[in-house]
Amino acid sequence: MRNLKLIIEYDGGHFSGFQVQPKGKTVQGEIEKAIFKLTGEKVRITGSGRTDSGVHALYQVVNFKTRSKLDPRDIKRALNSLLSNIVIKDIEKASMSFDARRKAKKREYVYLVYSGATLPVFLIGRVCHVKGKLDLGRIRKISKILLGKHDFSSFCVKDKSEKSCLRELKRIEIGRRSIDLLGDRHRVIYLRFVANGFLWKMIRFIVGTMLKVGQGRMSAAEVKRILASKDNRNAGPVAPAQGLYLTRVWY
Amino acid sequence: MRNLKLIIEYDGGHFSGFQVQPKGKTVQGEIEKAIFKLTGEKVRITGSGRTDSGVHALYQVVNFKTRSKLDPRDIKRALNSLLSNIVIKDIEKASMSFDARRKAKKREYVYLVYSGATLPVFLIGRVCHVKGKLDLGRIRKISKILLGKHDFSSFCVKDKSEKSCLRELKRIEIGRRSIDLLGDRHRVIYLRFVANGFLWKMIRFIVGTMLKVGQGRMSAAEVKRILASKDNRNAGPVAPAQGLYLTRVWY
Repeated sequence: MRNLKLIIEYDGGHFSGFQVQPKGKTVQGEIEKAIFKLTGEKVRITGSGRTDSGVHALYQVVNFKTRSKLDPRDIKRALNSLLSNIVIKDIEKASMSFDARRKAKKREYVYLVYSGATLPVFLIGRVCHVKGKLDLGRIRKISKILLGKHDFSSFCVKDKSEKSCLRELKRIEIGRRSIDLLGDRHRVIYLRFVANGFLWKMIRFIVGTMLKVGQGRMSAAEVKRILASKDNRNAGPVAPAQGLYLTRVWY
Repeated sequence: MRNLKLIIEYDGGHFSGFQVQPKGKTVQGEIEKAIFKLTGEKVRITGSGRTDSGVHALYQVVNFKTRSKLDPRDIKRALNSLLSNIVIKDIEKASMSFDARRKAKKREYVYLVYSGATLPVFLIGRVCHVKGKLDLGRIRKISKILLGKHDFSSFCVKDKSEKSCLRELKRIEIGRRSIDLLGDRHRVIYLRFVANGFLWKMIRFIVGTMLKVGQGRMSAAEVKRILASKDNRNAGPVAPAQGLYLTRVWY
């Protein structure tokens, strides 16, 4: 028996999220089907986090246990030829105790926003579109309120499996960068979050709130009150999935 | 009556080409429908070139004549809100004699190729994928053969409306550049072509031939013979549409 660790990327627009669902194509389901085709084994893969429908991953970590004796490089090649819109970037043998979800120490997500009248066609499905201007200075002030250890009940949807909504937001970075395609450079705003773990829809609740603040429709004082209220009815709205990318996991 | 000139971009993957077809969604058809909704006029728009199904445009020029007295900026805004996967980047009044197709002096297309074992998911539909390595030096030698005025019968599909297959390839540039998304930089090969005009599928025939040469499966001498033969059965195969972008038109 071996435990294999995979680094994968996927375009979330093609899937009903990471986790296997009764209906719809999922990242987990597609990879498990591909492993079955390759090895004949019905395995259950574990991901570092269960990204929602539409959420992308540039760096997601998964692991699974297998009796297959195939060379990991051959497994990578075979899975890549079986999968669509999911790419195995890397594969390696891990210790038998490695668990992509439980052993993760920190995770990083990036949220991309395009602010301007019309969204360039090649950014459709890849960024969130905000028509008006955003004041990044105001958004950075909110970052300071949210950084550190807090009960993030106001910024998540409660998941029965979670005992506590206490998380530590270790880093928030707000800036501008350009995405370029053939010299058509598009300036986008990125919001980068690092935490020990994230709650269900936590980043999208935080980003939705930040965008409101950046548009001048909410004050820093209100964000403080929302965080203290432990009630998500005042936060948000939840920012759209297509702007969100899982970009790193630390073990 | 006014003649309006528009600069547009579109993701070719969503359309059955530029030109109106009996079946399928087309760039021309969608824009004409949007103009009808806005002004009530059934206009015919003219494009600088009729890109095929799947071919993208970062800079396509179209024009149409209208009795509408709306401010061009308002027309742009209204059309952009009516259209999907097509963006009006710019709009201006042109002289009544302006014709996006007939008055074009030069056109530029860029073809993008990713060479590597596995295509990154965010490049799917945006570039052509070649698994093996490509020798750009060999491809550059072919450029020298094709540059200048030639009868390109061997590198096109004959279109009844074309009287002659004589075209002048004014510039070919082959190089590498990176497309980056969130720090994941992907090196792609670009092939840039400037000509007074292009024949139907001409660039895709040329690129298909160049890729064969770059993979060492065809020699420069063979390309010379193919060009002289005026027979497209020896050229190609036609490279896939998704790597091709119309990037500039000069008047």
